[in-house]
Amino acid sequence: MPIFRIETWSGLSSEKKKDLVESMTREAIRILGCPAEAVTVLIDERDKENWGAAGQLCSERFPDKPDSE
Amino acid sequence: MPIFRIETWSGLSSEKKKDLVESMTREAIRILGCPAEAVTVLIDERDKENWGAAGQLCSERFPDKPDSE
Amino acid sequence: MPIFRIETWSGLSSEKKKDLVESMTREAIRILGCPAEAVTVLIDERDKENWGAAGQLCSERFPDKPDSE
Amino acid sequence: MPIFRIETWSGLSSEKKKDLVESMTREAIRILGCPAEAVTVLIDERDKENWGAAGQLCSERFPDKPDSE
Amino acid sequence: MPIFRIETWSGLSSEKKKDLVESMTREAIRILGCPAEAVTVLIDERDKENWGAAGQLCSERFPDKPDSE
Amino acid sequence: MPIFRIETWSGLSSEKKKDLVESMTREAIRILGCPAEAVTVLIDERDKENWGAAGQLCSERFPDKPDSE
Repeated sequence: MPIFRIETWSGLSSEKKKDLVESMTREAIRILGCPAEAVTVLIDERDKENWGAAGQLCSERFPDKPDSE
Repeated sequence: MPIFRIETWSGLSSEKKKDLVESMTREAIRILGCPAEAVTVLIDERDKENWGAAGQLCSERFPDKPDSE
Repeated sequence: MPIFRIETWSGLSSEKKKDLVESMTREAIRILGCPAEAVTVLIDERDKENWGAAGQLCSERFPDKPDSE
Repeated sequence: MPIFRIETWSGLSSEKKKDLVESMTREAIRILGCPAEAVTVLIDERDKENWGAAGQLCSERFPDKPDSE
Repeated sequence: MPIFRIETWSGLSSEKKKDLVESMTREAIRILGCPAEAVTVLIDERDKENWGAAGQLCSERFPDKPDSE
Repeated sequence: MPIFRIETWSGLSSEKKKDLVESMTREAIRILGCPAEAVTVLIDERDKENWGAAGQLCSERFPDKPDSE
């Protein structure tokens, strides 16, 4: 029955999303004792321009590096 | 005053969104006794790749059929 | 798969909660075409002191009447 | 430690986002007594077609004016 | 129309809640250009035992001081 | 920076909450590559009476057993 929701910056690869879903589900089964079928995992990707930390937009505080994702 | 929030897979038509807003508002009036003006309905569309169920991404578990919405 | 979430003031009776769950599920089936088993309904009750509208706490703007729920 | 989340219609300029983050952080410091580093501000932009008010989609109730933002 | 949501540790006084609602509403009017009547402010108080930071429960990482709120 | 949120039925022991926070943080470090200090974990406990599944309140669908937690 549990719902896991992960909010993070945009730009996750499908592999990382898959890994998140598998890990959250495995931990839910282990800790909460529920079956895999009962676990929902929601991934909220948010642009750095819509995420503020320490009074600054993350798009300014943590700009993407030019030669990386 | 109530806020209804519906999270579902992306790809709802405007007609379905309209229907959701009208139905939620009608039920809020009936059950909660508030006026229509007090009801907010928020629709969160989420890609299947960002929704996990039973340990799998829904994009893999429930792939879109080639010839349908 | 859809998740319906209803945020409203605290103090709903069990009958109203039941009615909300049944109505949201019925509308989800009708509009979204999913089976009842796939529908989750979450009810968030919030004290009026933690809900602000028009710049005021609802506990001050809409005080409970002395002789009613 | 506080998390501020602002849900509003899509189309905010970077300047307004910056202003929201700075204002929320400043008010958190003043009211909650936490350091700037502890404050997170999340901005949720939502299309008017996914926001219902008074039983109508905001895209119909408040259509964008042709010659304005 | 905007909805402001503030998640923080439990134990806010009514004065601080009132200040949060007034400040958020004032900033919404100034930045987003909406009327006070359109602004909703929701306060989510959460026990430190239900808030984790840096891998620890805040109830352990930041225990309440014996002689203070 | 990521925020993990777990919604589940009320009644988790402190040990399970601790385990959830440690596991989510460890997985965030491994999958998202962020430092432990950047990870927030929020636990939302919800009474079964405020959680609906398959058209029924979970308080009716999954009643607590008399002699267990």
